[in-house]
Amino acid sequence: MIGSVTVVGLGPGDEALITPEVTCALAVATDVVGYIPYVARIPSRDGLTLHASDNRVELERATHALEMAAEGRRVVVVSSGDPGVFAMASAVFEAVEHTPRFASINIRVMPGITAMLAAAARVGAPLGHDFCAINLSDNLKPWEIVERRLRLAAQADFAMAFYNPRSASRPHQFARALDILREECEATRLVIFARAVATPEEDINIVTLAEARAEMADMRTVVLVGNAATRRIGPYAYTPRRAG
Amino acid sequence: MIGSVTVVGLGPGDEALITPEVTCALAVATDVVGYIPYVARIPSRDGLTLHASDNRVELERATHALEMAAEGRRVVVVSSGDPGVFAMASAVFEAVEHTPRFASINIRVMPGITAMLAAAARVGAPLGHDFCAINLSDNLKPWEIVERRLRLAAQADFAMAFYNPRSASRPHQFARALDILREECEATRLVIFARAVATPEEDINIVTLAEARAEMADMRTVVLVGNAATRRIGPYAYTPRRAG
Repeated sequence: MIGSVTVVGLGPGDEALITPEVTCALAVATDVVGYIPYVARIPSRDGLTLHASDNRVELERATHALEMAAEGRRVVVVSSGDPGVFAMASAVFEAVEHTPRFASINIRVMPGITAMLAAAARVGAPLGHDFCAINLSDNLKPWEIVERRLRLAAQADFAMAFYNPRSASRPHQFARALDILREECEATRLVIFARAVATPEEDINIVTLAEARAEMADMRTVVLVGNAATRRIGPYAYTPRRAG
Repeated sequence: MIGSVTVVGLGPGDEALITPEVTCALAVATDVVGYIPYVARIPSRDGLTLHASDNRVELERATHALEMAAEGRRVVVVSSGDPGVFAMASAVFEAVEHTPRFASINIRVMPGITAMLAAAARVGAPLGHDFCAINLSDNLKPWEIVERRLRLAAQADFAMAFYNPRSASRPHQFARALDILREECEATRLVIFARAVATPEEDINIVTLAEARAEMADMRTVVLVGNAATRRIGPYAYTPRRAG
């Protein structure tokens, strides 16, 4: 018997943001695999084994999931947000590419509410026009690529969402990212720091680019940057549908 | 008594992709407002009035929703996908900006599964690295902006998602967009045509940029374009997390 790997997104935190499709997949799983804080969100039950692993071992975790599926188990790999956005879905396919015997395993990806869209909804509609999503971590790419991409995105007048803006091991790069934005954009550009969206620790801060400081972000923050037309209206921030 | 406007995303089609948060909002609504095919997805019940309107009247629809809320009603504005991604959330805030008496109305946006992430999940993980979302319609922006943005996005090596790629009234522009991509990207670049994702009419087609033809898209299609590293692995398409 061949099992399956289902890669699901748990959304940003609130259980009310988990799709019924994902809830059903979890209900029939034999094994749940994921990063410790995400696996901690899954209630234990008879017949379900929880496999929590540390951060930065995505490929090992994906391989473990595929190995269990090859033994006939129904494995669910959990990510926060959407599994296809800077999360486990790519790691699973990388593991398949590295190990040909996994090619026959049934893999399914189930989308989820990704952090940038939960954050955008919280403040209004700052991503209401063309936008981009950039992972600011240079764990998996040279920082030069991040800088170049940031500059081109600003020149294209995309609204932007930054994932993984800043961590204890990378405290200085987000400051550099803000410097690049200051070179390319006006000082009144809106910057939204959305920390721990849809959790009890949620904290949202809307400032201008002139006011933005790197210390306003940590690894639980998604940062949204408006385009040239993004504006405040009362407590909300939104980007008009019209441009040009 | 002051009412409320809740702007919700119904996801791409499958009811199993509607978040419980949105289902709860619909359960307590007095009025549902939206484009005809989206309102048609809401079951009628006692105490609920459905207000379906035609396409391209987003601002009038938003104003109508806010007027009913000002009269004390609990209004839900429905969009397909996520309401903050080329949908009704921006139109609601535009209406607030135009009409100061709406400023006191309680507005809440609830995220949904947007088409590009549902499509990406269906084929694997093509948006697994930095990516952008571009509305190819020039109803609300000059076509020159679209061309410039496309070119810069390709130079930045973003994976891309195109919303509203082609309609009966705009049959030629998507062909032009493909020409620009051919100037900027290699012929083997992967292009994914995902039509009516998560509906019974779903049709997914993965081709190379050399094979892509404008006729492969219509208004129900979201088009995904990989970055330079996006590849096929068996029936899946995915973008590695590493770059550079």
